[in-house]
Amino acid sequence: MTLTPEDKAVILNSIRDIPDFPQPGIIFKDITTLLSNPKAFDTLMNHLEARYKNYELDYIAGIDARGFIFGAVLADRLNIGFVPVRKKGKLPYTTVAEKYSLEYGFDEVEIHIDAFGENGSCSREEPSKVLLIDDLMATGGTAKAAASLIDKVGAKCVEACFIMELTFLNGRGCFDIPVYSVLQID
Amino acid sequence: MTLTPEDKAVILNSIRDIPDFPQPGIIFKDITTLLSNPKAFDTLMNHLEARYKNYELDYIAGIDARGFIFGAVLADRLNIGFVPVRKKGKLPYTTVAEKYSLEYGFDEVEIHIDAFGENGSCSREEPSKVLLIDDLMATGGTAKAAASLIDKVGAKCVEACFIMELTFLNGRGCFDIPVYSVLQID
Repeated sequence: MTLTPEDKAVILNSIRDIPDFPQPGIIFKDITTLLSNPKAFDTLMNHLEARYKNYELDYIAGIDARGFIFGAVLADRLNIGFVPVRKKGKLPYTTVAEKYSLEYGFDEVEIHIDAFGENGSCSREEPSKVLLIDDLMATGGTAKAAASLIDKVGAKCVEACFIMELTFLNGRGCFDIPVYSVLQID
Repeated sequence: MTLTPEDKAVILNSIRDIPDFPQPGIIFKDITTLLSNPKAFDTLMNHLEARYKNYELDYIAGIDARGFIFGAVLADRLNIGFVPVRKKGKLPYTTVAEKYSLEYGFDEVEIHIDAFGENGSCSREEPSKVLLIDDLMATGGTAKAAASLIDKVGAKCVEACFIMELTFLNGRGCFDIPVYSVLQID
């Protein structure tokens, strides 16, 4: 399950630093260069597949929009369902919503009320087991709201997984479920 | 390569009709029920994988945001790179943009200038071969703008692929490249 230093370097080196995006002073971690590099992307997904194959997950939930990419591929590899957590107004059926704080103001994410089966359960008559995934954890606000939505519709969010974690923001501290990140950025 | 009627039915029956979304009179095709159904999703992706495995593609380009899901999985299965075409302002590096008409006004999509390698070529010293993918073709405006962006940065968009095509809108007529759709909605 542990990522070798060589594999970690392959993934890390495929991510591009963009200074001053989206505003001055921020160094943005550009994952498009990871996505377009099949060797690096396959190394990453092999690691996630190995980590989660024995979790007996029922669904992967991915956060709009970059979380869709990693989440859908992991769901396909594990042969389980994929569920999108979306920004407000994008999902067409009945939704449950959760607000979270931004630096100034609020934003909101939504999930379909029946996303994980009737009352959050698929065939097993217990809450569906769900892994939440996104590309980056900064303060963790969006992911915490998303994890809360998964529980609200009756399923169980068993872990939150991120490709990168900005450790200096201590987003991890706001979760009461296990948090896993592939790369830690100091 | 041809989809059997049984497989087509499995995919079609997994898609949910939502009346009056996003506005009265529109029947929205909800693909979240396809994504959360591993049998239907696998049937769809097996078909796309079989269709495209001999195209010698270098990249799959997916349109923000539902095109990311199908595009990333197909790229992973074919072991080639994935490139996101995004709405304006989302991509961090130098971009090329293309406007397209909406019913009232304009919208804009962007791509990284080096998305398909330096001058649009990866290792083969000829334009990268790219498949464009999205979930739905309505009038085709967004996808046509996206295909045009792929060519603008020096690569070659060899086909546009959609899970569903609303045939009564004749979006197909605006393309000068091959268009493929898995399901045709009359």
